[in-house]
Amino acid sequence: MIRRIVIDDIRPRTPTGAYPAKAVVGEKVLVSAAIFKDGHDILAAQVRFGDQTAPMVPIGNDEWAATISPRSIGARPFVVEAWTDRHATWARKVRAKQDAGQDIEVEMAEGIAIFEAQNGADPVIQDALTALKQGVVGPALEVELAGSAGAHDLTSSLPVPLWVDRERALVGAWYELFPRSYGGLWGTAERVPAIAAMGFDVLYLPPIHPIGTTFRKGRGNTMGAGPSDPGSPWAIGSREGGHTAIDPGLGTFEDFAHLLDVLRQHGMEVALDYALQCSPDHPWVREHPEWFHHRPDGTIAYAENPPKKYQDIYPINFWPDDDGDRQALWHSCKEIVDFWVHKGVRIFRVDNPHTKPLAFWEWLIPAVQSEHPDVVLLAEAFTDPRMMSKLAEIGFSQSYTYFTWRTEQYGPEGLRAYLEELAGPKADYMRPAFWPNTPDILSGPLRNGPPAAFAERLVLAATMSPTWGMYSGYELYENEPAADTNEEYWHSEKYEIKHRDFDRPDALAPLITAINGIRRRHPALQRLRGIRFHHSDNPWIIAYSKVDDDGDDVMLMVVNLDPHHMQETTLWLDLEALGLSWDRPYTAYDELSGETYRWQGPNPYIRLEPWVRVAHVLHLPAARP
Amino acid sequence: MIRRIVIDDIRPRTPTGAYPAKAVVGEKVLVSAAIFKDGHDILAAQVRFGDQTAPMVPIGNDEWAATISPRSIGARPFVVEAWTDRHATWARKVRAKQDAGQDIEVEMAEGIAIFEAQNGADPVIQDALTALKQGVVGPALEVELAGSAGAHDLTSSLPVPLWVDRERALVGAWYELFPRSYGGLWGTAERVPAIAAMGFDVLYLPPIHPIGTTFRKGRGNTMGAGPSDPGSPWAIGSREGGHTAIDPGLGTFEDFAHLLDVLRQHGMEVALDYALQCSPDHPWVREHPEWFHHRPDGTIAYAENPPKKYQDIYPINFWPDDDGDRQALWHSCKEIVDFWVHKGVRIFRVDNPHTKPLAFWEWLIPAVQSEHPDVVLLAEAFTDPRMMSKLAEIGFSQSYTYFTWRTEQYGPEGLRAYLEELAGPKADYMRPAFWPNTPDILSGPLRNGPPAAFAERLVLAATMSPTWGMYSGYELYENEPAADTNEEYWHSEKYEIKHRDFDRPDALAPLITAINGIRRRHPALQRLRGIRFHHSDNPWIIAYSKVDDDGDDVMLMVVNLDPHHMQETTLWLDLEALGLSWDRPYTAYDELSGETYRWQGPNPYIRLEPWVRVAHVLHLPAARP
Repeated sequence: MIRRIVIDDIRPRTPTGAYPAKAVVGEKVLVSAAIFKDGHDILAAQVRFGDQTAPMVPIGNDEWAATISPRSIGARPFVVEAWTDRHATWARKVRAKQDAGQDIEVEMAEGIAIFEAQNGADPVIQDALTALKQGVVGPALEVELAGSAGAHDLTSSLPVPLWVDRERALVGAWYELFPRSYGGLWGTAERVPAIAAMGFDVLYLPPIHPIGTTFRKGRGNTMGAGPSDPGSPWAIGSREGGHTAIDPGLGTFEDFAHLLDVLRQHGMEVALDYALQCSPDHPWVREHPEWFHHRPDGTIAYAENPPKKYQDIYPINFWPDDDGDRQALWHSCKEIVDFWVHKGVRIFRVDNPHTKPLAFWEWLIPAVQSEHPDVVLLAEAFTDPRMMSKLAEIGFSQSYTYFTWRTEQYGPEGLRAYLEELAGPKADYMRPAFWPNTPDILSGPLRNGPPAAFAERLVLAATMSPTWGMYSGYELYENEPAADTNEEYWHSEKYEIKHRDFDRPDALAPLITAINGIRRRHPALQRLRGIRFHHSDNPWIIAYSKVDDDGDDVMLMVVNLDPHHMQETTLWLDLEALGLSWDRPYTAYDELSGETYRWQGPNPYIRLEPWVRVAHVLHLPAARP
Repeated sequence: MIRRIVIDDIRPRTPTGAYPAKAVVGEKVLVSAAIFKDGHDILAAQVRFGDQTAPMVPIGNDEWAATISPRSIGARPFVVEAWTDRHATWARKVRAKQDAGQDIEVEMAEGIAIFEAQNGADPVIQDALTALKQGVVGPALEVELAGSAGAHDLTSSLPVPLWVDRERALVGAWYELFPRSYGGLWGTAERVPAIAAMGFDVLYLPPIHPIGTTFRKGRGNTMGAGPSDPGSPWAIGSREGGHTAIDPGLGTFEDFAHLLDVLRQHGMEVALDYALQCSPDHPWVREHPEWFHHRPDGTIAYAENPPKKYQDIYPINFWPDDDGDRQALWHSCKEIVDFWVHKGVRIFRVDNPHTKPLAFWEWLIPAVQSEHPDVVLLAEAFTDPRMMSKLAEIGFSQSYTYFTWRTEQYGPEGLRAYLEELAGPKADYMRPAFWPNTPDILSGPLRNGPPAAFAERLVLAATMSPTWGMYSGYELYENEPAADTNEEYWHSEKYEIKHRDFDRPDALAPLITAINGIRRRHPALQRLRGIRFHHSDNPWIIAYSKVDDDGDDVMLMVVNLDPHHMQETTLWLDLEALGLSWDRPYTAYDELSGETYRWQGPNPYIRLEPWVRVAHVLHLPAARP
């Protein structure tokens, strides 16, 4: 129902409006709304957010905006309030009449009534009132009556849900590795200092639980594993336990606690895999057969994508016929999260959430976060856009994206269109994580690609998205695909142990270290919405800028998308967006090379030889006078 | 809360979703929704609409669509239902396994279970089941199991509100006149045959109520009316009555009934003005002073837009401090509508609805339409876009638009951008009325404009929008503005009586008659959503096509926007949208001139000399093979 004033189209919001939009502590959140009333009165508006009150300003077309600053995590709804500014409306009328030489006697009396209703102890207001009573209107026209106290037509929106996460839900650099390739959890802890030195914030581990032996997959995803084959970590569960156990081959809970300690000492934290599926040997198969799909021949259904069969995995039936069974299953799934939270884990990378009911996540995520608002969940939903977006809307903190397959600049499948989509209204609730590779995905220019391809995709991922991640081996340019027909790696680490020489002198680690360092120094790179593309005459070279919430930090990235050839271009910078003017020179400091360029106007010439460098990552320190 | 299947983003809908979308009887309404579920099962969906059940088909990106056909007026909600198509999912699996030469024994048993659950008497299904039991899978793969009976995971949307109006709410040609210039209501009735002969559907009369004498405005909106000045019809109310009285100078209720009879005989109906404001002489001022704004000096506030004063009009205070006063006022406002509905009026043109609270309209319109669903209300809200859109959302049947000021083809203020906006999602709830002129607005090329300007704007209004209207005098090319600083007419009929010679041989009546006739013959012109623009090399010439709901009727309009000069162009028709092919010639029949053109390919050459003709209105009868 509409009250005195219309307050519509409040942002941030999710598409249906039924779930909270998202923000992080320290972010400056732009709140906007369409606010209007019948007639021609002047309105005023503000946002109430906890103990903050932010005055809104009109920004055109009946839209108003204000900025709020979340300072603590959890459910933090805000309210938009609007009212008729009787004083400003009155002052406008008085001025118009004065300008036309008309009598304002009645208006003087109206003014006195308005000031008396204000009922304030502010001496400026009192003086204006006194002057009015003496027939002097000037001070009363000039004074500002702020705030909604004594407001006329005061109208409040319903509380608008906003979920505030800690910063890591928006900003972070992730590193993924298989602990078994490093000698288990203890060996992984020994690798942490080197990973931390590259500037990573999160260490993501594929499932660390016991792996089934029944139908265990051998090297290269083959049937019939040999005795030395470790199996896929996603075939969870054996006699040694299920989702709340650690594979004895990886270590003990003490080793796990040690790993968390080492991470903490290096300013990092762990992300565990939350993969809700079972090997045929998982304890649940025996204890809760009712939680699986049964076939007419009495067997439990394994995973299939006909004609492909995954006999080592039993999907869980999240919607058994019996409601009691469903509730018991869902609660057991939540108990897994609770268990690891109790062990100190606060980030979960959720495997294939799009193959589980949305209603399950809609229940689980608020249930977990109401008890532990610092829990962050990354959705691994490489699926259709609607599903990916819906998972974000109902509560996932972060989402894997299509970045891996966006390799060109232009077109509906290009980087520009994709980033503009992500940084638009979607940014209210969906936070992208850009991964140039994963253990499942070796794609695009990386396939048999040169080192420059790895450098290029690294710079794009880490400067376009506040969260980015890579799977280990990337820094060693691992580029061999398993086949032309899929995106798997040759000798996929999912089915075997890998040994790597991270001390290779030509490795990518220095560039990773540099990029992650720049990301930490420049708040512009810690935000998504501030991205803007600039025209480049050569489509192989992409140029985009970012600014931070305050508009103080301005970064300009220029990247060669062609890892094989030198490309050169003339840019057409949107100087205004960069806070620059046509008639004054400005400096661009390349944070990667340490070089400083002195430019003037919108058309710098750029030349990028991929074997020398793939990108400029430029700070525009002279951007604001 | 999400149920088993997600059903999102259902259209048609209003921006907030809190009010009914709109359709008319006979319209084919495209219902679409995003429908998806976890996993990879094949889904099915349908729309339930009264006794209709329309199967939905997937149209890409998880969107589904169906068409429903409203057959009666009133609140007619629909429901979207989706379910898992177990049979299709099963058949897909069986085929994939067969193709790979895999065993399907268990799948046969699954198939039997699915067919037995279907529980249908359909002999085809029974035969397929029998074959399955005999180990023959073929018939079971081919059969179609339609409908949601026995559906798995059946999920229904909430009822989606849809308001169905009669056709006149979407389609109509309106003619506006001041009855006093025709000798009152009786004289107006005598003019009806000529108006009906031009093809008009609705006769719209400015307020026909007694006009106040206090501060009555004289000719040209001047102070101090002389005894012969009739006053503005919008200064409603005198000793002779208020909003439920007829100005005795115009006639009696018998005369009004006679006018309605004559209109009915000519297939027309009346639209009355609903202007909620009072002259100082209105009975309400005496009987209900609490319904007006009072100033500190004890006077009632007249209308002001400082420094302009409208002393002949008292605005109503729709939100008096006392809630009881407000309820009494609002009900009295509704009683005015009820009164005229009782007298046979079903269309109201609402004066300045944007100066009355939206909450008032939100209450009034459903209150009226729940009793009289055939009532149509046109909002005269020449105001900001948000307000205009909101009035449509909360229930107005039609809206005046910015058409009058959209005179060029390109740019954000151009006809193309505006029509694309109106025909997009807005068309779900806002129905435009295009008026080239009104008694208040003489604008753009019509100001001191040549006859070709009047012809051009007529063709645009009547072929772009399903509803269009004109104010009398247009057919006589009345083109003299009152001043350079406003859009009023010289000798505005709002303040004086006009006598016109409609028998002028050069009048626009023949073109009006032709255009209205074409509109009636061609359903394409009775719809808004089917509009599409085609590139023209010369921006002075605009080209757009329309198709009807079924895609059977295809019209192509080519209009010269320059009333002063010959313009020529090459068109770039979107042949596919027109149902044409590159390699086959087609005929274009000009409904205005009777000429037939034989064209092939997308590039006809067009030459329009405004003194000969301003437009082609082409039927493409050979559009479909």
